[in-house]
Amino acid sequence: MKLFEKTRTGIKPACEDSMREAAERLDKLAKPIGSLGKLEDLAVKISGMTGKQNNSFEKKVTIIMAADNGVVEEGVSACPQAVTTIQTVNFLKGVTGVCVLSKHAGADIRVVDIGVASDLVYPGLISRKIRKGTSNMAKGPAMTREEAVKAIETGIEMVSQLVGEGYSLFGTGEMGIGNTSTSSAVAMAFLGCSAEDAVGKGAGLTEEGYSSKKSVIERAISVNKPDPKDPVDVLSKVGGFDIAGMTGCFLGAAYHRVPIVIDGFISASAALAAFRINPLVKDFMIPSHCSEEPGYKLAMSEIGLKPMLDLNMRLGEGSGCPLAFNIIEAAEVVISEMATLEDAMIGSDFLVDIREK
Amino acid sequence: MKLFEKTRTGIKPACEDSMREAAERLDKLAKPIGSLGKLEDLAVKISGMTGKQNNSFEKKVTIIMAADNGVVEEGVSACPQAVTTIQTVNFLKGVTGVCVLSKHAGADIRVVDIGVASDLVYPGLISRKIRKGTSNMAKGPAMTREEAVKAIETGIEMVSQLVGEGYSLFGTGEMGIGNTSTSSAVAMAFLGCSAEDAVGKGAGLTEEGYSSKKSVIERAISVNKPDPKDPVDVLSKVGGFDIAGMTGCFLGAAYHRVPIVIDGFISASAALAAFRINPLVKDFMIPSHCSEEPGYKLAMSEIGLKPMLDLNMRLGEGSGCPLAFNIIEAAEVVISEMATLEDAMIGSDFLVDIREK
Repeated sequence: MKLFEKTRTGIKPACEDSMREAAERLDKLAKPIGSLGKLEDLAVKISGMTGKQNNSFEKKVTIIMAADNGVVEEGVSACPQAVTTIQTVNFLKGVTGVCVLSKHAGADIRVVDIGVASDLVYPGLISRKIRKGTSNMAKGPAMTREEAVKAIETGIEMVSQLVGEGYSLFGTGEMGIGNTSTSSAVAMAFLGCSAEDAVGKGAGLTEEGYSSKKSVIERAISVNKPDPKDPVDVLSKVGGFDIAGMTGCFLGAAYHRVPIVIDGFISASAALAAFRINPLVKDFMIPSHCSEEPGYKLAMSEIGLKPMLDLNMRLGEGSGCPLAFNIIEAAEVVISEMATLEDAMIGSDFLVDIREK
Repeated sequence: MKLFEKTRTGIKPACEDSMREAAERLDKLAKPIGSLGKLEDLAVKISGMTGKQNNSFEKKVTIIMAADNGVVEEGVSACPQAVTTIQTVNFLKGVTGVCVLSKHAGADIRVVDIGVASDLVYPGLISRKIRKGTSNMAKGPAMTREEAVKAIETGIEMVSQLVGEGYSLFGTGEMGIGNTSTSSAVAMAFLGCSAEDAVGKGAGLTEEGYSSKKSVIERAISVNKPDPKDPVDVLSKVGGFDIAGMTGCFLGAAYHRVPIVIDGFISASAALAAFRINPLVKDFMIPSHCSEEPGYKLAMSEIGLKPMLDLNMRLGEGSGCPLAFNIIEAAEVVISEMATLEDAMIGSDFLVDIREK
């Protein structure tokens, strides 16, 4: 609880001075003002996090929180629960979507067992299991308040440790059969929206399964009555160890003033929880792709962020993060390596202002 | 004319067999079917171009066509014409937006003077000047039909030459003050839409300048009456050497069966011209970012392509291409390096199908 409180209250706002300096530098470059759009916005935003005008990210990592969800006994997922364990091992084998995309981006992954429902031991796996899966939220709270705080603190600790290892750009990923249901419940609890608005088909449900999923999630809300003003209450009652762990990653990244990328819907629901814990976290979050899950847009619009990639992806795992890493690095290349108008004119017989709005 | 005809008539459709094999491979991977969205679509599309299931792109290049436009004498641009020359030199110095983004992507650029209005000589510049800028399209045809064909053939030749040098992934860029006006005119000629729908503010116009720009373009259309059924007529009357050169790049890439990326509005109007010359070209085109120029969406919707990146960019130069290159390579990494479900299950005690739709 101490670490959670220390982190929550220790997050400082973005550095306005650094952001202004970065914006001024961008406006001096040899291009129409603002013409590199979100690449410019990114460079400015990152300056606000780090306090430096130019940033580079030699070490990049996506933290993958793996956990099981008791609610799967209600039949909310098309996949059997064992898939959480299987895919967690496959991350470590380097053969899943997020693995090959991370390798392509020159980024690493870290896989955390924060609550997988099996006795999982594998080389490279970070074992921080809180319990072998949550309880069924359709029947009562998914976890205790203490467990939720412990999961959040696990995420904070992961980021602290990796910052210590020199990582300066973070992504958030997950594996947990049933976690589109918990994410929907978290979004519904915070936003007061209906299952109709927030719930999608996850990794492939029939119409009948979809309809049943919606009523299970509605039941979870009505049974637990999570308090939207108390984010830890929401996470403990209708969240998951993975979502709470990712919430901690967002808080930890903001505390350490490093950029952290939101992946898809599960990641966005964790981002929403972190935002409700401390709205300043938003200044350290970078969106990636627009998930196909309907709740994604609701969560992002509440935080006030818009995705950069439109790839119809709905894999999860953190697979959008390495793609966003490349764009973030492109933004840094723009602010660091493009010539200013003045430099660009050297050797010309004339000085022409090409930067007009 | 011979090269243009040979290329136009020599483009073959995408290879359906290769696309089917690629799609089958993707459906065998350890992920819900289709969950990597456009990354999967890209891998399939590229298989259709090359006839191979797995592709890699060691040598990537954006071809930048630089040319001036006579219509600038009507005051359609906020920038003086000299900027075309200045920025063309800056490409060769490696300091503009497309340069630093290409370097970040491990890609090259080639800069072609296809019609800059100055006696430009610079190390690395490919001099293929057709004329020192087009004529003012508001008063008559921008160029002769022969010049338009020559510009198209220049683009075809550039791609042929670079394919010979081992390049296998192409981007299209441009520099030419006034070329959002010519691009708007080309889009309006092909689509029959109004200046209100197709014309934007380019690299920064006042409201008054914007209104004048629209009437200049309308005049260019009414003076020249370009025949939408004759793409060379459209390009010669209201296009530019840059647009016609890029049109040739698209045709050349399709002829050589290599992927070619569409950048922003100018590139999209050239893509539209190429599509009208031979609709099969579409199977070799890959969109990048959604340009802020209104005509971009019209051109892309006519071709039937949707952008992957939403970055509010409006720089041009080909700056979206290196960003798209990274996503294209990510698509190839997915199809080449992800484990199949069967492989992913090795060492597990059970086989579970996680690929359900």
